[in-house]
Amino acid sequence: MSAKGLVKRNQDFSKWYNDLVAKADLAEHSDVRGCMIIKPYGYSIWEKIKDQLDVMFKETGHQNAYFPLFIPKSYLSKEADHVDGFAKECAVVTHYRLKNSEDGSGVVVDPDAKLEEELIVRPTSETIIWNTYKKWIQSYRDLPILVNQWANVVRWEMRTRLFLRTSEFLWQEGHTAHATKQEAIDETETMLNVYAKFVEDYMAIPVIKGVKSANERFAGAQETYCIETLMQDGKALQAGTSHFLGQNFAKAFDVTFADKSGQKNHVWATSWGVSTRLMGALIMTHSDDKGLVLPPKLAPVQVVIVPIYKNEDQLNAISLYAKLLINDLKSAGISVKYDDDDSKKPGWKFAEYEMKGIPLRIAIGPRDLENKTVELARRDTLSKQSISQESISKTIVSLLNTIQHDLFSKSKLFLKDNIRFANTIEQMNDLLNNKGGFVQAFWDGEKETELKIKDLTKATIRCIPLKEAEFGNCILTGKSGAKKVFFARAY
Amino acid sequence: MSAKGLVKRNQDFSKWYNDLVAKADLAEHSDVRGCMIIKPYGYSIWEKIKDQLDVMFKETGHQNAYFPLFIPKSYLSKEADHVDGFAKECAVVTHYRLKNSEDGSGVVVDPDAKLEEELIVRPTSETIIWNTYKKWIQSYRDLPILVNQWANVVRWEMRTRLFLRTSEFLWQEGHTAHATKQEAIDETETMLNVYAKFVEDYMAIPVIKGVKSANERFAGAQETYCIETLMQDGKALQAGTSHFLGQNFAKAFDVTFADKSGQKNHVWATSWGVSTRLMGALIMTHSDDKGLVLPPKLAPVQVVIVPIYKNEDQLNAISLYAKLLINDLKSAGISVKYDDDDSKKPGWKFAEYEMKGIPLRIAIGPRDLENKTVELARRDTLSKQSISQESISKTIVSLLNTIQHDLFSKSKLFLKDNIRFANTIEQMNDLLNNKGGFVQAFWDGEKETELKIKDLTKATIRCIPLKEAEFGNCILTGKSGAKKVFFARAY
Repeated sequence: MSAKGLVKRNQDFSKWYNDLVAKADLAEHSDVRGCMIIKPYGYSIWEKIKDQLDVMFKETGHQNAYFPLFIPKSYLSKEADHVDGFAKECAVVTHYRLKNSEDGSGVVVDPDAKLEEELIVRPTSETIIWNTYKKWIQSYRDLPILVNQWANVVRWEMRTRLFLRTSEFLWQEGHTAHATKQEAIDETETMLNVYAKFVEDYMAIPVIKGVKSANERFAGAQETYCIETLMQDGKALQAGTSHFLGQNFAKAFDVTFADKSGQKNHVWATSWGVSTRLMGALIMTHSDDKGLVLPPKLAPVQVVIVPIYKNEDQLNAISLYAKLLINDLKSAGISVKYDDDDSKKPGWKFAEYEMKGIPLRIAIGPRDLENKTVELARRDTLSKQSISQESISKTIVSLLNTIQHDLFSKSKLFLKDNIRFANTIEQMNDLLNNKGGFVQAFWDGEKETELKIKDLTKATIRCIPLKEAEFGNCILTGKSGAKKVFFARAY
Repeated sequence: MSAKGLVKRNQDFSKWYNDLVAKADLAEHSDVRGCMIIKPYGYSIWEKIKDQLDVMFKETGHQNAYFPLFIPKSYLSKEADHVDGFAKECAVVTHYRLKNSEDGSGVVVDPDAKLEEELIVRPTSETIIWNTYKKWIQSYRDLPILVNQWANVVRWEMRTRLFLRTSEFLWQEGHTAHATKQEAIDETETMLNVYAKFVEDYMAIPVIKGVKSANERFAGAQETYCIETLMQDGKALQAGTSHFLGQNFAKAFDVTFADKSGQKNHVWATSWGVSTRLMGALIMTHSDDKGLVLPPKLAPVQVVIVPIYKNEDQLNAISLYAKLLINDLKSAGISVKYDDDDSKKPGWKFAEYEMKGIPLRIAIGPRDLENKTVELARRDTLSKQSISQESISKTIVSLLNTIQHDLFSKSKLFLKDNIRFANTIEQMNDLLNNKGGFVQAFWDGEKETELKIKDLTKATIRCIPLKEAEFGNCILTGKSGAKKVFFARAY
């Protein structure tokens, strides 16, 4: 294993993930418990994700806004389920000033600067936003409100993993307000579909759409829709959720509107979010023992060009052609980097760009110049081919599309191969222990049944599929009329 | 004064500003002391600012990253000036959990969940970032680091005004690390110039470039460069700062690098930032008694089209043409809105879009269709003209450029007319009381002189100009060799 090498996935998937996040320069732990530092390369991938989602949110009629980081403690309590769900993991601001310590050794919290009411660092913004919507909404003319916020949130976590579970994370949270129940449900489903489309078309990760069981529902929601994905180690990962909140928050904050006849009704609500957790899904779906594999649509650099030379004359000749090639690729909308750093050997560079998941690598040597070819290497398949310099940008555009498509096909096949059916708890455990993946099974719809199955298998219900239901006898209780749902062990 | 009307600027500038921010739907106060809610329309302008600055940062070689919201209390103390500057306005997190109160009335802070070391909500990120750079920097090969962060920060403020001074605000903070002093100074100046270019070319606000006096310097900087702007009420507003930090933070966090000869040196640093305060500058520079005036380059909607009709047939005919016009404008890169809302009268719409600062309004009536004309109204001058439908998108592109240009010329003239010279403190007070604006005066360079002048005039040194210095006798002490600097009362 070289200095830059990774442990293999099949040896220790968890260590492989941690090594990869570090060695591809994506993120690192900070000294602040559970808070990560997203490094420039990792952040540039997140920017790609963010920018595309933002376009899709605006295309579906949403606008961005910004609400306070802090939530008065009392607001959190206004919706009973909500406070139960979040109170145990809140960062609490109690003071607003420091002062010099009397012994001169540093600064201490100034006891005279205690807040009358403590402030919670937002774990999610339903409460502060619905407190605001109360002022924005009087009549049906003020509806719908279709607002999204890009923000940081904090949920104090005891066990953290970069991107997957951190105390502070970046996300977007949509918060919409509607005049009718149906309109709110439609919005919830629209946003689930936006998420599904983004994750499949851009991240090249196939999803299973469904709704959560009551146990797994968002604290304060009447229905939580979700997209579930499957990682290479056979564990599931929830990639996004869209919540139908009913009138819960409107009632908690007394938000009503006058309809056309002047009658007052409570407003209907949704909220929906995805976070930097998507970075974890992206990494664990496509990457391999050599490092990150990125779908071209989310790669900050899609093509890297490495000159292969023995002397300065050769380098100059190659650079001359490379500059033409770069212009050519850029005008075809491809992001490209030319690495003529003389202090590094080509082999080192190849390994580095494999680690970073650049979809295509072009190597150009003196022989290539003679033959009017370049050597092209695909990151996803690690295959190499010599291609003609003629209409090369066309070739590359088409190859990038192929890679995007192939990554999705491959992970789709993997998902399909890893959905299995279990008739008994023993079967389910067998499958989970030996194969991983999703296990379909019949469930009688009871909370206790779900919890008991979790105790026995460490698997939770990932989702109740949206497609037409199938019924049978419950895997645990044997009750008839039980619904077929997806179980898995999950991140 | 209509329901939507504003108090006039010359009656009560401060109330005019507050009314405008509310009535143009830009922002509002939240229930959380000093924290604002940026409403969708206000946020869409901020997005324009952010997107353009981000492009300019990337063009100058910077990358974005993300660092934790929380800073351990002890980090803040590591740089002596820095902690003095920020300790008095820090939001402090002391606990990480709530629990149900014993009387069942709500939730209380769980005393068992007290943090060992308190966390500060970042007021700025030098300390957490330099603590990180320590790990990133070993050799000259790791330099320079050119990183920017878009983030929220918190500085507890007792007296707040929307956009201008809020406890939480949005900003960007660049943090760079360099091998040499000169390189760091060059970077500081480069970023000052980026800010100046953005504020002048996009915000249409002329700036004075300079450096701050020691009193007004950023806590921890060796030199603070700034761009100063002048508001319509004659008060100055600092629009951006770029700090040369010397080796202060590198020494505080022991960040060294090995140069080519292997010798270890402390790293040189800069930081630079602009914030949602720019929104305040934008509003107070161009707007008038009818509402917001936006420079076309930062207007989320550049053109609004309002149909003028008496019956549905007329509306249909107008809409038919409007659709063609919209396509035409969009393909010319213009953002356009068609307001055919039948529940509002044209007069109401005109007032509304004047309040919101849409640069151009097009009204189309049946007569216009006959004559193949439209009525065009400029927001900045409130002038109207009838123009031909022929090559209308060209006319409009050119008119938007004219407006952008005219706004800048107008505010440049205003700035020029409001720079005056004072020989005595009485003169300075006279000018500040009766004219406002910048007052140039000679200052002997002493801290106490500056503070005494501030006591006597409520004016501070806004900047020491970057251009060649002029010298004379100090306005207060009469000392010779004093430098000519800019004084003003400021936001």
